[in-house]
Amino acid sequence: MLSLRQFNWSLIFYLVGYILMFESVFMISAFIVSMIYNESDIVGFEESIGVTFGVGLLFILLFRRSKHLRIGKKDSFIIVAITWIVISLFGSLPFYLSHSIPDFTNAFFESISGFTTTGSSILTDIESLPHGILFWRSLTHWIGGMGIIVLVVAIIPFLKIGGMHLFNAESSMSIEEKFRPRIFEVAKRLWFIYIAITVLEVIMLCFGGMSLFDSICHSFGTVATGGFSPRNTSITEYNAYIQYVIAAFMLVSGINFSIHYLILSGRVKRAFSNQELHLYLLIILTVTVIIAIKLISDNIYGVEAAFRHSFFQVVSIITATGFATADYLKWPVITCLLIFMLMFVGACAGSTGGGIKVIRHLIFLKHIKRRFFEMLHTNAYCPIRYGKTVVATETSRSAFNFIMVYIMLFVVGSLLLIALGNDSSTSMGAIITSMGGIGPGFGTVGPASNFAHLSIAVKWILALFMLLGRLEIFTLMVIFTPVFWKR
Amino acid sequence: MLSLRQFNWSLIFYLVGYILMFESVFMISAFIVSMIYNESDIVGFEESIGVTFGVGLLFILLFRRSKHLRIGKKDSFIIVAITWIVISLFGSLPFYLSHSIPDFTNAFFESISGFTTTGSSILTDIESLPHGILFWRSLTHWIGGMGIIVLVVAIIPFLKIGGMHLFNAESSMSIEEKFRPRIFEVAKRLWFIYIAITVLEVIMLCFGGMSLFDSICHSFGTVATGGFSPRNTSITEYNAYIQYVIAAFMLVSGINFSIHYLILSGRVKRAFSNQELHLYLLIILTVTVIIAIKLISDNIYGVEAAFRHSFFQVVSIITATGFATADYLKWPVITCLLIFMLMFVGACAGSTGGGIKVIRHLIFLKHIKRRFFEMLHTNAYCPIRYGKTVVATETSRSAFNFIMVYIMLFVVGSLLLIALGNDSSTSMGAIITSMGGIGPGFGTVGPASNFAHLSIAVKWILALFMLLGRLEIFTLMVIFTPVFWKR
Repeated sequence: MLSLRQFNWSLIFYLVGYILMFESVFMISAFIVSMIYNESDIVGFEESIGVTFGVGLLFILLFRRSKHLRIGKKDSFIIVAITWIVISLFGSLPFYLSHSIPDFTNAFFESISGFTTTGSSILTDIESLPHGILFWRSLTHWIGGMGIIVLVVAIIPFLKIGGMHLFNAESSMSIEEKFRPRIFEVAKRLWFIYIAITVLEVIMLCFGGMSLFDSICHSFGTVATGGFSPRNTSITEYNAYIQYVIAAFMLVSGINFSIHYLILSGRVKRAFSNQELHLYLLIILTVTVIIAIKLISDNIYGVEAAFRHSFFQVVSIITATGFATADYLKWPVITCLLIFMLMFVGACAGSTGGGIKVIRHLIFLKHIKRRFFEMLHTNAYCPIRYGKTVVATETSRSAFNFIMVYIMLFVVGSLLLIALGNDSSTSMGAIITSMGGIGPGFGTVGPASNFAHLSIAVKWILALFMLLGRLEIFTLMVIFTPVFWKR
Repeated sequence: MLSLRQFNWSLIFYLVGYILMFESVFMISAFIVSMIYNESDIVGFEESIGVTFGVGLLFILLFRRSKHLRIGKKDSFIIVAITWIVISLFGSLPFYLSHSIPDFTNAFFESISGFTTTGSSILTDIESLPHGILFWRSLTHWIGGMGIIVLVVAIIPFLKIGGMHLFNAESSMSIEEKFRPRIFEVAKRLWFIYIAITVLEVIMLCFGGMSLFDSICHSFGTVATGGFSPRNTSITEYNAYIQYVIAAFMLVSGINFSIHYLILSGRVKRAFSNQELHLYLLIILTVTVIIAIKLISDNIYGVEAAFRHSFFQVVSIITATGFATADYLKWPVITCLLIFMLMFVGACAGSTGGGIKVIRHLIFLKHIKRRFFEMLHTNAYCPIRYGKTVVATETSRSAFNFIMVYIMLFVVGSLLLIALGNDSSTSMGAIITSMGGIGPGFGTVGPASNFAHLSIAVKWILALFMLLGRLEIFTLMVIFTPVFWKR
């Protein structure tokens, strides 16, 4: 029996009100930038802030009585989904109301691409936009990278009870039961590391001769593994120092943030014994070397440039950032295919990076190894270990499920785009890059082009896939199952 | 520590001797055909039979003392792999010694493509070959379809002890422990059904006006889900009745043979309650209808022809047969992609069909359903059921492992072929069609062309993938793991 009454709608709207208030505060920071440069977007920002703050305040006032209600498990899925949709909707207002992106579908696409840290753009001439809008565009990455829910959990104390569900529903950084009382602490700590890395990158980019404005925008795009650049040519025209710095920060942002915390608290040895980190670095190293050798042997670059461009593109794709120093579509076919495969790898769990995530592949590889062992030793008991702990059957199963549903959705999405008349490389590239939160794809949506020419239907489908990928698929998909709506 | 001594080599060679004797008996039947038609291949057959029988007899005599040794678990993997390689090697002799296929790589490719029931051919003018050779070519399908090991188990009584390992290593029809004493019975029963279906198809094809010779060859190719045709144009030029008959028999051959046994023994209701069968038929029906509608709406065929060609191609691909009534590469892109996807589906377990198999997909789908249920009900225990029995964690895990390794090998193989200079559709098509034992692929190896133009290296790689697919991957792969060679 379908039942809508089972959800705490008033509590859901109350929380959405809070989220909108937060969003309007972020908008004010972009508004300040637009006032500094005194460009055409000032009025657009005023209107956007007014609407966002107003609606937020209205919701809080209307539903304030429900704030002591408990957030149920089902509610949390609804809250997370609605939050991400609402924040993207209101986030598109500055683009739309300032007439920077006059078409609503395009404005929403740019906004959700920002918040989900995808970085696919419909803009054809980025540099013609006012600074306030470019700042807001990069800021959406930074807000979405760590996750709006994590932010809310870190700040609103009354969420103590239900925060866990929300946190787990949004984030791959699944918090164990024992951390439950400390979730507030964990969220604060994550934001501290996040801000620290961002500030450090801004300083290092300024040091290399990049303007402060560009440094801040690029740092937002890097640390959130987003990929929006305020430049038409992404990172292509910057010097080698800048390219290495951004590559290094992308690599760092693709690592589990709890490893950064271990390093900051002096437990360096324990941090570096992480198996997922080993595999992550091994994949980056191997693919970088293979592509570099191919680029050198085909006389496309000299040794240093080949290594640099290969490393930059590999890290940019595996972490799902999407910055570019070169157009990989102009590289040999085999290197393109390796990059396509990297899109299915993803960064480490607990990072801001997207995709399937290295740890799931690691669990898969360990299972294959065990399978062979068991084929030869009938009665042997050999549990799968990750570090020193035994991986629960539950965890393995969930990793397998995830990888397979991911591939299944990739196939379904690609077929849908092909059925809508797109060629197959564009379709497959657009779907995987949206679902993985990467940015550039293949075919007509490569690193040197953009998503502007796609049809309206395709843009909404891609927006859905961005959201699916950002919420790690099941959180969003479960809402579409009949069992969810039954009491 | 690497050790070769741990294997019962003399017993392995003794069994290979038996296999070769069997093969020479089959060759004699093709030799009789060549004598009836009195064509140029008579001498080639005499030489082939002499060599095969001679080597077989020599092995049996040399190693006859080991016949009471026990077949160990590791031995069985070696035996199965060697058997399939040896049978394909000696099976290529008639092609090679009769000068029908003067190049050895091509002769071996045709032979292993026959035994693994793939049906990919390097022949450019099939009809120019003598009848004995064409008969042998189709007979390799028929021998390989049910599996040479199943045949040997059915006939040699002394294998009672170790037969189980061999049977499980070769066949997806994994026999439960309780059937152990009855394995001899099971193997005989399977062969009885196999022969009965073949004879029935021959009669029905003759009834439709096909010559007896062509009827037999096509029946071998159908029931084994092989796909070699003695005609250059496969089934294209036959009438609609013949096309429907062959499609129906392909469909039947893709069903678990234990269901046929249930029907033959009167337990019809139980047979039709099989969940894998339901999904298999549902997939065939759905894809047939979608493709037919697209073919009608694009004015490629009339209603009956569109349905017939769609049904024929869908069944031919899902069962991994590979007969063709039309060139699907000339159909709209979306239908080609559906056919490409069907190549990853496969037939039912326990049939002669290849691929991933429907039951593995079914288990996967059941897991996804459970995952959603568990997301909403924390403490619920909901086991995965198949029919009335609970699916063991072991079984689910092994299904997941299989699907993922299958896709992984597909990616690795495709990259390898692309690195060797083939275009990407040809590479992906050739790998998936070889591994699934299907026959036709995409790009330059579509249903209307052949595999002759590929390089020698590519042909050997494809031969390896045929074997990998036929032996359900792990049986062959385990031999290449270090743990296998350790004592």
